[in-house]
Amino acid sequence: MIVRTKSVKLKGTHKLECGKILKDITVAYETYGEYNGKNAILIMHALSGDAHAAGKHKKSDKKAGWWNLYIGPGKAIDTNKFFIICANVLGGCKGTTGPASINPETGKKYKTSFPIITIKDMVNVQAKLLDHLKIEKLHAVVGGSMGGMQVLQFVASYPERAKLAIPIATSLKQPPQAIAFHEVGRQAITKDPKWKKGNPEHGLSIARMVSHITYLSEEAMWDKFGRKLQGKNALSYDLNTEFQVESYLKHQGFSFTQRFDANSYLYITRAIDYFDLTKHNFQNTGLKTFVLSISSDWLYSTDACKEIVNKFVRSGINTSFVEIKDDSGHDAFLLNKPKIMKVIKGFIENAKI
Amino acid sequence: MIVRTKSVKLKGTHKLECGKILKDITVAYETYGEYNGKNAILIMHALSGDAHAAGKHKKSDKKAGWWNLYIGPGKAIDTNKFFIICANVLGGCKGTTGPASINPETGKKYKTSFPIITIKDMVNVQAKLLDHLKIEKLHAVVGGSMGGMQVLQFVASYPERAKLAIPIATSLKQPPQAIAFHEVGRQAITKDPKWKKGNPEHGLSIARMVSHITYLSEEAMWDKFGRKLQGKNALSYDLNTEFQVESYLKHQGFSFTQRFDANSYLYITRAIDYFDLTKHNFQNTGLKTFVLSISSDWLYSTDACKEIVNKFVRSGINTSFVEIKDDSGHDAFLLNKPKIMKVIKGFIENAKI
Repeated sequence: MIVRTKSVKLKGTHKLECGKILKDITVAYETYGEYNGKNAILIMHALSGDAHAAGKHKKSDKKAGWWNLYIGPGKAIDTNKFFIICANVLGGCKGTTGPASINPETGKKYKTSFPIITIKDMVNVQAKLLDHLKIEKLHAVVGGSMGGMQVLQFVASYPERAKLAIPIATSLKQPPQAIAFHEVGRQAITKDPKWKKGNPEHGLSIARMVSHITYLSEEAMWDKFGRKLQGKNALSYDLNTEFQVESYLKHQGFSFTQRFDANSYLYITRAIDYFDLTKHNFQNTGLKTFVLSISSDWLYSTDACKEIVNKFVRSGINTSFVEIKDDSGHDAFLLNKPKIMKVIKGFIENAKI
Repeated sequence: MIVRTKSVKLKGTHKLECGKILKDITVAYETYGEYNGKNAILIMHALSGDAHAAGKHKKSDKKAGWWNLYIGPGKAIDTNKFFIICANVLGGCKGTTGPASINPETGKKYKTSFPIITIKDMVNVQAKLLDHLKIEKLHAVVGGSMGGMQVLQFVASYPERAKLAIPIATSLKQPPQAIAFHEVGRQAITKDPKWKKGNPEHGLSIARMVSHITYLSEEAMWDKFGRKLQGKNALSYDLNTEFQVESYLKHQGFSFTQRFDANSYLYITRAIDYFDLTKHNFQNTGLKTFVLSISSDWLYSTDACKEIVNKFVRSGINTSFVEIKDDSGHDAFLLNKPKIMKVIKGFIENAKI
């Protein structure tokens, strides 16, 4: 599947939750499949994701889109049956307006002059993209982690604009432990002397390393690495890398700096930390929800997902729930997990709507 | 209880596990209570601890020693009944030879020329301190976290030198997830441009922040902070501190830089990461052990503690085990927890030996 990223400038003023105004927001998005008036599915991406959810931009690309395992012909989210949209979030660094974009009023990058954004602001932009695409009502809105928060916010803000909603491995509000891990990363970035110069690669790599740990699980760590040494049979007894897990994490940190903007990282983690719908009064508009948790996810645990279910049930919203027994941790929903694929496909294709 | 830190120079050569040799190791230690020939208890401290386990150095001290809640007249480790010793570990920065000490051969601080040390090396120095104090056999050896690893190593290396051993909230080997968190901290320190100049305070504070999260628990985070804002009633929508948990962590990070040496942090975390006694052949010398875990500890979980118990049982070592139901996380053993105090006191005073 060869795809391309499209771009639209949403002209006019966009009032943000912080009270500030952004003019003319550019949104990068991709679509897969054919629209038939009632088969649109909006995919919401997580912290480090982008509009490129599936397929390749050119045949020689080494990697396909971030959710290519789940989106495609015959897959869980079937491009033969559905018209699928995925947009880079507001505040992102992959084509949508964010801190690394040029501020039209100054001709320079926004950097930290970018206004603070929230998950609600991101979702408002997603809704405006749907307006642009002339899609009034979605078949489904789907996302995991921060994508799941956007799904929840979509249910809160636009309950009449989707028939189905699938929040995965997410939470009704960001827990303090998760705020704490984000704050470690933000401090690593903002204390990096190169931050103001725009290239705090050490800080950003530290931020990614610590976050990455929270996306795995104790079990996954044992499975993947255990206490195996990195490229040797005996300890070196020096300060260099000894264990595989150290090498893996450093690689994750470094490679992230090659593809992500540090200020986007600050703004998006902040948006996640602000997220709290516990006091929101959800409306029952006939929309059906399917909440999915991963048993080994300790970032947004099954208990956190059950809180979403309880909130929906108390609001009279039709809700299904499945906990997937899996040892991979939070990131399981991005991996090749037939059980997850099966339940998502089942709900999207068979839910009575 | 007014106490003072003593110091001894253990003259001669000390062969380390890495093969290198340290000459004339200085050890800082404190003792409380009176020695009667059979009532000595050796306390092993955790990563950021020191010899000052109990009492105050002068009346006006704001804080008492790090385990003052547990050590004193009538307390869990009773200074009226026992002669208690606590020494700063090899590689530390509170009086015992470590990377911040002067290398006698160069007249300059060791810094990263300090040889790599292990938990076994630390324990060998503790044993030499006992030799110096003319204590052949301890009544008990007690410690939590890295202190617990030292206790386990003491049981492995010197099983005939203690009657009782109490490893608390620890593990037979450092798990990969814990190595991963340490590596984040080490990277934060070594990537700090001020590291080579000897004062990587940003890096060290980041390292402490991330470690500190692992010492608490999800439940403790909710209890202590929840999503409460820091000194305000509404979000500021800027990049400064918004949540209490952020402020708390930053304070923990900063204050650590005022009292700890960054190179000691590198060397001691490395020593912990190396720790692995899973293949050690423990001997039954009549020594009795009491393993204590905290239910909410996710750094060294109850499962990790049960692995110690199983290892001891398979080795024929008399072993008791208690899991304390407590929401405070790993650090519970440092806090005012009557249940923990009671079981430690009970074992130390009533175990049939």
